[in-house]
Amino acid sequence: MTDNDEEPSQAEGSGSPIEFYFDFSSPYGYLAAHKIDSIARLYGRAMNWRPILLGVIFKTTGAQPLLDIPIKGPYTRRDMERTARFLGLPLVFPEVMPFPSIAAARAVYWVQDRDPEKARELCLALYDRAFAQGGDIREAGAVLDCAVEIGIDRDALAAALQDPAVKERLKTENEAAMAAGVCGSPFFVVDGEPFWGADRLDHLERWLATGGW
Amino acid sequence: MTDNDEEPSQAEGSGSPIEFYFDFSSPYGYLAAHKIDSIARLYGRAMNWRPILLGVIFKTTGAQPLLDIPIKGPYTRRDMERTARFLGLPLVFPEVMPFPSIAAARAVYWVQDRDPEKARELCLALYDRAFAQGGDIREAGAVLDCAVEIGIDRDALAAALQDPAVKERLKTENEAAMAAGVCGSPFFVVDGEPFWGADRLDHLERWLATGGW
Repeated sequence: MTDNDEEPSQAEGSGSPIEFYFDFSSPYGYLAAHKIDSIARLYGRAMNWRPILLGVIFKTTGAQPLLDIPIKGPYTRRDMERTARFLGLPLVFPEVMPFPSIAAARAVYWVQDRDPEKARELCLALYDRAFAQGGDIREAGAVLDCAVEIGIDRDALAAALQDPAVKERLKTENEAAMAAGVCGSPFFVVDGEPFWGADRLDHLERWLATGGW
Repeated sequence: MTDNDEEPSQAEGSGSPIEFYFDFSSPYGYLAAHKIDSIARLYGRAMNWRPILLGVIFKTTGAQPLLDIPIKGPYTRRDMERTARFLGLPLVFPEVMPFPSIAAARAVYWVQDRDPEKARELCLALYDRAFAQGGDIREAGAVLDCAVEIGIDRDALAAALQDPAVKERLKTENEAAMAAGVCGSPFFVVDGEPFWGADRLDHLERWLATGGW
């Protein structure tokens, strides 16, 4: 307890961390990343940022990338742009979508083991490069450029991206995500309750506010 | 203008009708039906209730019923129940899901050509039978039972369900829906803008309130 009556208080940090699963190639994941970051702070919850590879998960669920599906593809592109405007966030599509996000995901886990707050910064920087600026973050070089801008050591990260242990780490995380029921991006788990989609942030926020319903 | 300052006024009825596409087998369609009915009245918009057959559309989009998909299926069932509680609506799943909804859809178009307001009533009655009570509306007999309860002539509707013109009508409507870009249920079109999902009612309502953004 503090003398500050404002609530919810960021300082309290009650409850388990919000698990946030996302693919760097997912525009809805980018939109949700900014929102969940604010929501977590507002409700004083820690967050685990967990990049995943949807392509691997889609092999199990049989899903295709949304933008490639007849009829759904054009609708989805329009919905992504409308949702960005609805949420007040910039959105510029990169040239290639979906794109391979394996280097970005590996980088995040390596940074996270050393400095979780820096990993959060890296996630937002990579997402913004891809979807606020429409940039290309497919190759290791582009990921390293982003990392250097927020003070991460380029050579150490470059070496890590080639490290079999780091590659294995992402594989393990992806398998754990699938085992936890993650079927898309963004996907959240709050106190055991799963929420799939940027369009479930309303449910998630009410869940945090009320403890469930 | 009236002496009544309350707004938006139902009496004004400005703007084109809200096109509401749905499959009677869709739980999210049931939840959305109640909400869109209230929203349309609030904003003084007419509505076109357009039952469709998702199975036919899924042949084009390559989609599977959500509940049958690995990992997504169990999540979706949980999300449907949580969404119902979020919206304050009862939800009881019928024994078979998804179920054939062809008789229900044909009945609605036949009634609609005679009495659009009665068709709206029939849509809500059929949906409630299926998802508020967990009942079975697959067979023509069950559809007729629902129809009779709201004052529709049983024998006339029974004959209509066998009429080749009524069968053709549903086929034409389904093709028109696909041509209009309908890729799921529920699906709405407001002044040319498409909205897919019960989770886009927030976008739709803001669109009605602001004229788009």
